[in-house]
Order: sequence, then C-alpha cells, then structure tokens
Amino acid sequence: MNLPSFSSVSLERHLPILSWAKVYDKDTLTSDLVAAVIVTIMLIPQSLAYALLAGLPAEMGLYASILPLLAYAVFGTSRALAVGPVAVVSLMTAAAVGNLGLDSPAEYALAAITLAFMSGVMLTVMGVLRLGFLANFLSHPVIAGFITASGILIATSQLKHLLGVEAHGHNLVEFIGSLLAHLDQTNLITLVMGALTVGFLFWVRKGLKPLLRKAGLSPRMADILAKAGPVAAVAATTLVTWLFGLHNYGVAIVGEVPMGLPPLTLPSLNPELWGQLALSALLISVIGFVESVSVAQTLAAKKRQRIVPDQELVGLGTSNIAASLSGGYPVTGGFARSVVNFDAGAETPAAGAYTAVGILLAALLLTPLLYFLPKATLAATIIVAVLSLVDLSILSRSWSYSRMDFAAVAATIFLTLGFGVELGVSAGVGISIGLFLFKTSRPHVAEVGLVPGTQHFRNVLRHSVQTLPHVVTLRVDESLYFANARFLEDYITDRVVRDKQLRHIVLQFTAVNEVDMSALESLEAVNHRLKDLGIALHLSEVKGPVMDRLQRSHFLDEIDGQVFLSHWDAWCALKDDPKAPEAPLAGQTAAQ
Amino acid sequence: MNLPSFSSVSLERHLPILSWAKVYDKDTLTSDLVAAVIVTIMLIPQSLAYALLAGLPAEMGLYASILPLLAYAVFGTSRALAVGPVAVVSLMTAAAVGNLGLDSPAEYALAAITLAFMSGVMLTVMGVLRLGFLANFLSHPVIAGFITASGILIATSQLKHLLGVEAHGHNLVEFIGSLLAHLDQTNLITLVMGALTVGFLFWVRKGLKPLLRKAGLSPRMADILAKAGPVAAVAATTLVTWLFGLHNYGVAIVGEVPMGLPPLTLPSLNPELWGQLALSALLISVIGFVESVSVAQTLAAKKRQRIVPDQELVGLGTSNIAASLSGGYPVTGGFARSVVNFDAGAETPAAGAYTAVGILLAALLLTPLLYFLPKATLAATIIVAVLSLVDLSILSRSWSYSRMDFAAVAATIFLTLGFGVELGVSAGVGISIGLFLFKTSRPHVAEVGLVPGTQHFRNVLRHSVQTLPHVVTLRVDESLYFANARFLEDYITDRVVRDKQLRHIVLQFTAVNEVDMSALESLEAVNHRLKDLGIALHLSEVKGPVMDRLQRSHFLDEIDGQVFLSHWDAWCALKDDPKAPEAPLAGQTAAQ
Repeated sequence: MNLPSFSSVSLERHLPILSWAKVYDKDTLTSDLVAAVIVTIMLIPQSLAYALLAGLPAEMGLYASILPLLAYAVFGTSRALAVGPVAVVSLMTAAAVGNLGLDSPAEYALAAITLAFMSGVMLTVMGVLRLGFLANFLSHPVIAGFITASGILIATSQLKHLLGVEAHGHNLVEFIGSLLAHLDQTNLITLVMGALTVGFLFWVRKGLKPLLRKAGLSPRMADILAKAGPVAAVAATTLVTWLFGLHNYGVAIVGEVPMGLPPLTLPSLNPELWGQLALSALLISVIGFVESVSVAQTLAAKKRQRIVPDQELVGLGTSNIAASLSGGYPVTGGFARSVVNFDAGAETPAAGAYTAVGILLAALLLTPLLYFLPKATLAATIIVAVLSLVDLSILSRSWSYSRMDFAAVAATIFLTLGFGVELGVSAGVGISIGLFLFKTSRPHVAEVGLVPGTQHFRNVLRHSVQTLPHVVTLRVDESLYFANARFLEDYITDRVVRDKQLRHIVLQFTAVNEVDMSALESLEAVNHRLKDLGIALHLSEVKGPVMDRLQRSHFLDEIDGQVFLSHWDAWCALKDDPKAPEAPLAGQTAAQ
Repeated sequence: MNLPSFSSVSLERHLPILSWAKVYDKDTLTSDLVAAVIVTIMLIPQSLAYALLAGLPAEMGLYASILPLLAYAVFGTSRALAVGPVAVVSLMTAAAVGNLGLDSPAEYALAAITLAFMSGVMLTVMGVLRLGFLANFLSHPVIAGFITASGILIATSQLKHLLGVEAHGHNLVEFIGSLLAHLDQTNLITLVMGALTVGFLFWVRKGLKPLLRKAGLSPRMADILAKAGPVAAVAATTLVTWLFGLHNYGVAIVGEVPMGLPPLTLPSLNPELWGQLALSALLISVIGFVESVSVAQTLAAKKRQRIVPDQELVGLGTSNIAASLSGGYPVTGGFARSVVNFDAGAETPAAGAYTAVGILLAALLLTPLLYFLPKATLAATIIVAVLSLVDLSILSRSWSYSRMDFAAVAATIFLTLGFGVELGVSAGVGISIGLFLFKTSRPHVAEVGLVPGTQHFRNVLRHSVQTLPHVVTLRVDESLYFANARFLEDYITDRVVRDKQLRHIVLQFTAVNEVDMSALESLEAVNHRLKDLGIALHLSEVKGPVMDRLQRSHFLDEIDGQVFLSHWDAWCALKDDPKAPEAPLAGQTAAQ
C-alpha cells in the first residue's frame, strides 16, 4: 500500500525526529552523550552571561537552554545544531526591550518572554508558509558586517563589568564617552580579576590544548578539558570572591539565583506591547534564522547530510515558543556551540536533548553555588567569545571584489555601531536591495561581433571581431523590466541616429530573462521609431519563457524583422542583405 | 576658441530657452500664437474646475496657470508640453491637504502653496542631481492602474456637485454610501443643468467636429470651435443662472472671484507642516513628473525631437516654485492639454508663455463674469475630462501578458479606490519591486544540449538536442546575487547527487550579468562540494564585466575546470573526456 508510506514520509518531514529515532542505537547514544556533556559544560557559563547581556536575570539564560533544546530535537533537521541563548540575539533582545523604557525588572522579563513568543510564532508561520527564501535577502556581506559590528558593541558593553563602573549610551560613541567619564570609579579588585580571567580564557583557547597533548592526554580528553576553561574560571573566581568576601569590597556578584525547575510563563497579550515589539521580533527571527541555518548547512555538508531550511524555521520557531513558556528569552542556533557539538561527535538532535537534561540538573542543583559568581567573570567569558566574531577583513575583501558589496558592508557596520542593531541591519538589507535595483536599472549593453573562425559573438570593445556595416547587434545584459525599459529605449535611439548605413538592428536576447509589460511597451515604441527610419528590428536567442510571453502579445507580428534561434543564423541571413524591408528614409530625413 | 562654445552649450543645457529663442521667427510666432489661443480657451474652465477639485478657491487655478507656464518656457525642454493644474495632481493635493484636518480656508490654501513649493524644490534638486531615473521604478502598468483609479475617484467625487448634495468619505465605498444617503436632498435644477452640460460636452467631443466639417468649416476652425465647448457651456450656464436667479433656488455657484494680478505668496516654513506634507510632496512630484515626461516624450518623438528628462525635472520644479510664489498650487504637464497644444501647431515653449498671458488677461478682466458660474458646470467639465483617463482594459491586457504585471495593476487600482491615492501608488511601486525581487530570487535554470548541425545550445526540455552522459550544462537565467545565491547552491547540489555518471558540470554564464560577493561564496561552496564528489566545475561564455570581477577573486584558481570562451569550445573539449580531474568517488560514496 502506498498511502501509509506516503503519509509517514510526510509526517517525517514535519517531525524530523521520526526519521532518526527509529534507527537510534547504542553507538549513537554514546556519541551523543559525550557531545552533550561537553556542550553542557560550555553552555552553563555562556547562558548565564548572555542573559546578563540581554539585561535579564541570570537564571533566564539557564531556562532558555532547557525546553527550547527539546523542541528543536523534535522539530529541527540539523544533526549538530546546538540551540540556546546566543550573543547577537541577546544584544538585539537588550536593544528591543531597552527601547520600551520599562522600569521594573518583572516587566522587562515579561517583555523578553513576549519577544520570544512573537519571534517563535513568526518563525513557525514562515516555516509553514515556506517563506525561508526571504532570509536570502540578507546578503552575506551584510550579515558579516552586522555580526562584526555586534561583536564590537557586545565586547565594549562588557567593559563596564570588567571595570566595575556604570555606563550607558545609545550608541558606541556615547557609551565609550560614558565609560571614560566613570573611569575614576573603577573597582581595582574587579578589574584585576576580570583582566586575569580574560587572559586565562584566551590562553585556554590558544595554549592549553597543545600543552595537554604534550602532557600525554588523548586528543579528546585535551579537547574536553580545554572546553571546560570557562567553567574553571567561574569556579575559581566564585571561590576567591567567597573566601575573601570580595563583594564587600565592591565586586559585583550575580547574587541569588532561584533553584528549581523552569517556571511556567505566558507571554503578555497587550496589543500595544506587541506593536512596539513587532519589528524587533521580525529582525531577531530573521537574523537568528540566517545565523543558525548557515551553521547548520556548513556542518551538514561536512557529513553529506542536508537540512531543510523551511523545516528549520519550524524547529527554531517551536524552540522560541518553548522558551517563552518556560521563563526563557529568544534563542537560536549558536555558531561556536554547534561546532563544539559537531566536533565532540554529536550524531543526532538527541545530543541537544541530553544537553537540556544537563542544564536542567544545573538549574536544580548548582544555582546556590552561583551566588558569589562575579559579574566580571561572565563579562570576560562574553568578551573572549564575541571577539572571535569580529572580522574587519570583510571590509577589505568586499572593497577589492565589488564596490557595491563594500558599500553595503560599510553602511551596515557604521550604522550598527552608530545607531544600534535594528537600524544597522535594516539599512544593510535596504541598501543592498537598492543597489541591486540601481544596477539593474542601468544595464550593461555590449555591441557584439563575430569571433573569426567560430559561430560565437562577443563585445566589439573587448575582442577582435568581425562586424557588418549595415547590421548592429546589441546584447543587453539584463532582464528588461520597468526600471530599465526607458534606458533601453534611449540607448537604442541614440545608437541608431548616429549611423546612416544602418538597416538592421538585432537584439541578442541571451541575457534577457524577462520582458515585463513596461519593457514590452518600450520595445514597441523602439520598433515604431525604427520603422520610421527604415530599420528592421530582429531578435535572436530568445529564451523559452520569454518567447512564450512575447507570443501572447502582438509585438512579434509588428516587427519587420525576424526572431532567429541562434545569433549565427541572424548573421548568415542578414550579412548579404544591405537593404531594409521598406526604405522611407529619403523622404523622412527632411523632418529631422 | 573652444571654451566659450563649450560654456554656451552647457548654458543651453540648463536654460533650454537659449537654444530656440535665437532662431525664433515670424512663422513660429504665428503657430505658437494660434496654439496659445486654443489652449487658453481650454484652460480657463479647466483651471477653475481643478482648483475646486483640489478643495481650493477657483482663482488659485487661474494663478497656477500663469507664472508656472513662464517658468516652464524658460527651463523646460519639451516644445509642446502644456503645464498647469491637472486632474490627478489636484486630487492628490486634495488628499494631502485634506489629511491635515485644517479648518480655515486660508490655512488650507497655505498648505497647498507649501506643497507646491516643496514639490518644486524636490523636483529641481532631483533634476540637478540627475535622479530622473528614479521615476522608472513606477512601472507602466502601475501608472496606468493609478490613473484609471484616480479618474474613477475624481468622476465620482464630482457627482455631489452634479446632484447639489453634500457627501464625504475616505474611500470610494464610504463616499458612495454618503452620496446615496443624501440623495433625497438632490437639487433638481442643479441636476438637470449638470446632466445637460455633461451630455453637451460629450456631444461636443464626439459629434460637433464632423458636423462643423459638413457645414463647410475648415478643419482647423472646426477644431477650435470644438475645443471651445467647455467655454460655451460655462458661458451658457452662467447666463441662465444669472437670468433666472437660479442661485436662489439652491444652485451652488462659484461666487466672488477676486479680480487682478496673482498675489505674491510665500510657503509656510513650519517644520511640522513640512514633515506632514513631505511624503505627499514626493508622491506628487514623482507622479506629476512621470505623467508629464511620458506625454512630452510621445509628442517629441512624433517630430524627432528629444527631451532631456533630468532637465524636465528642473522645468517642472521651477514651475511649481513659481506656482507657490504666485498663489497657485502643484502643477505638471497635462496630457489632453499638451496634445491640443501640439495638434494646434505649437512649435516652441513660447506658446506656453502666450497661454500664460491669455490666462492673465482672464484673471484681470473676466473674473467678475464668473460670479454666477454654477459649480455643477465645472463638475461636468471635470467628469467629461477624466472619464477619458479611465481605461480598465489594462486589467485584461496585463492579465493575458503577465500575472506579475496584473498583480501590480490590480493592487494599485484596488488600493487607490479603497485606501486613497497615496497608499495606492506607493503600494503599486512596492508590489512591483517586490515581485521583481521575488522572481529574480528563484531564477529559471535550463539544462542545455547541442542543437544538431549547429554550434548552438538550447534547453533539453524544449528542443531536441544532443547531450553527453558525463557532462551537464546548466544555463542559469539570472544574475547571481544574494537573493538567489543559496537557490543556485541547492539546485546544483540536487542535480549532482542523482547522477552517478557525471564528471563535468559546466555553468553557461550567458545570462549571468553580475556575480556579487554572496554568489561568489556560494559558487565557492558548490566548487568544494563538487570537488569532494570528483566532479569538475567549468564556466563558459562569461561576460567581460563578470570575468573582470572573478579574476580579482581566488575562485578561478580554485576550480578544477576551465573557463571556455564559447560553449561550443566546452563541448569540444569535454566530449571525449569522461574522467574527472581527480576521481576520489569510489572511496567517498561510502560516506553517503
């Protein structure tokens, strides 16, 4: 019977867990468990730190790392993606909720929960409607610029915790100014501890693993220990703070973190709040999705697996809805975390579920130990993590490749740093689309001739080619649509009036993938003008889809010329035919 | 000496009057004067009527038809364009100023004057910065839909004057509802007179000219008399109203129109008002420019003249500034009026200046005669004029040619009728750009083969062509940019995995006019995947500008394949080479 098999395939498409759960065995379990342990160790300090970055209580970071991971394990298609709070989305959450001007921490937390819910619903709906392609309008350079600028903003924002001072500002310059103004209030103990932690964490990243290998540890063991660096830093600085009572000397600490299961929470249904958060939720959804899906795709390609972008939207959407129902805030797939998960051998999304259990245990058992954890330690963790995101080489790379890409990157970085994440990324998208439209509105047009000894035609300005005095071939290098219809009309008219010998004009349509109604009307106008001048208009190499459409109009009946399958056919047919179909030229020139 | 000649050419470019004034002779003067008389006769009732349509005192229509025409004569490039108040711009002015919720007529008039000034500045700045191409983003179908919907809105709005009742509404449905609710208050005398006038004007349009010709008049004389129809209607109904004192029976009349020169006025400099009017001014500028420039271009082409769109912006911009300084409101080149001007023999913009003198004389001498002019007569003039703009066939024409164009037209018409002119035209532009981007984000990809007996390659699905089992050629019918980069990546990957014999993949780049940085990164990703599968990636027929850019990246060094000048070269080189450059395939398939 086909029907059950079909519906099980369809069910698997919507519940990817079904496709891997049925072949789950002991080997896979072991791999997934090892990966889960490593990711849990990495995720505990990160989730606390990112919650603080988002301006939320530390425990919300833990809550955002439990249920969402289970939801992704059920609905996600990547075998290696590790979901949870990430730096950029935390920064965007802080910006979105910070804009509301709320006073009470409870309202602030509720707004973040609502943001997660809205983002979750948007992602899920986009997935169901298969709108994943919309994310493609975020170009690679814009994403790269945005991530780099966000990394700079995040690292700078953490300096105040490292110095133990207050600082505020709506953009980078304001913030740095405020930081400098408060520099005299620096808490030296905090600074020393923070600086040591930063130094330690950088050393762990670069120097520890080779050292452990030299000491004779296995590569895997060396890897696990190196990944435990942040946890070690958390433990050591917490211990020192507690032993010496450093919080009495002005070292800011995390303080009481409630112990227990994640609470059941509900988003606000206040329509005014929804209105205020809608754009932010959309941006967080799209940025989170793009970041996540590109990690997932890279990792899947390494194992020749495939992910399904539209199903990924559902996976991330349900994760965010899960976050909003369990005291969390917006989550997505994290880059560093997923790479660690992949390298540690995670084979299925079950690894994420085991990680969730690990974080749950931490929330149930370890939170009292976090009381004396210095905020400077978490700031150091964030700084070391995000500096790897900062890559200003995108500026030089895009400059050397394309000025348009450079303009989009530079504007994104500048506007993100100067005016915040939301304006930065929106403007980046707007500018890249605007530049694309601008470029297509002024297409490149080449006059082509025959490459000797072939049947191939190329630009007369770039190749040494043969041409005919009474025939001009124009290759328009763009689809013809409203934005360039008039340009083409003007171009052909200008080309024609300065050439008295001309009797045939051939438009080589190799690069014309579309002729919309505006362009059709322009072509008709061109045809009328050419007729008046006694010049025949021909087309060559018209593609199937364009031909189908032209045949539904009267244009092909109206032109005096022909439509040639290949341009070589046009050359052969026209090369010995210097006369135009009708030649009213002599009578007409008087009117000029 | 070259310098003076260069600067006089440059000066002529910015002051087109210099180019025709020096060759102005008696014949040209006669032609221009005749045209000016006819246009003046046509313009007097129109300018009064359109001012009322805009919600302004009738005299502002006259004022808008004096100085602006002189400004256009100096700065405009069209020999036949007749500038002044037009229906669509008057409707847009009413919408823009009506939105402000002003109470006093003086404030209302000041807002209209300010709107003309802002629009004038915008147009002039756009002209100086050569931004005329921006108008191309208004596609032909969107303009056609907008003009049709505006015509329906205008004609409907005048029904209340024809019935002599009050009616209000923010959209067509509301307005008609309000009209029907007040139907019992219809003033019968007004209705009879209005209906007779409409009937008369339609008859003048269709039936008068043939009749006059039969009666033995010369074609030109018949034409002038037919054009005088509206003036005759104005004279007759005013006389009847005065003779029988119809205003005492509820017939609404124009009332006192001040006599004299246009006043010197200045726009408001209130920044709040500017903020409220900015978008409206931009829309009025763009719509006015597009309407005007397409009329000008059509008429210029008939005489093999050319207009300069960027200079037209300056011409219309200075006209609007002139309107704002002399008690007028936004103006542009009118379609019907310009055609009349052209047909009547206008040879230079001086005809416009003579028309201005005619209207000035009317303002100085005739205004007392307008006291008893019934508003219903002006409404009839408007209805007859705008119904010629309504052309719903654009719906069926666009439907049969292209669903995308149809969608843009239908949305523009629907939204303009339902939500007003500003939303309608903005949405039309947005939708047509959105659909274009959507289409380019999912390009047509053809697998091509050799047309037997030629060196030409076409789609395997449409033509009977030869293919090779170990070579696949994909012709991507779109520029490669961020919106379709991932699509291409997925398409090639999907195509490759289901074909075990494949050793070479050739991307025929005939339709690729651009490879941006996102697409380059996608091509690099594709290349890495193909390398893993032991398949070589080749390119053929790469255009000059694209090749220049690719040579600045490392991509061409990284691919295993070659770049072929013509696809025939690729065919010849690869047809006998079934092995890939490296073939790690056997070892790799196990990983699948």
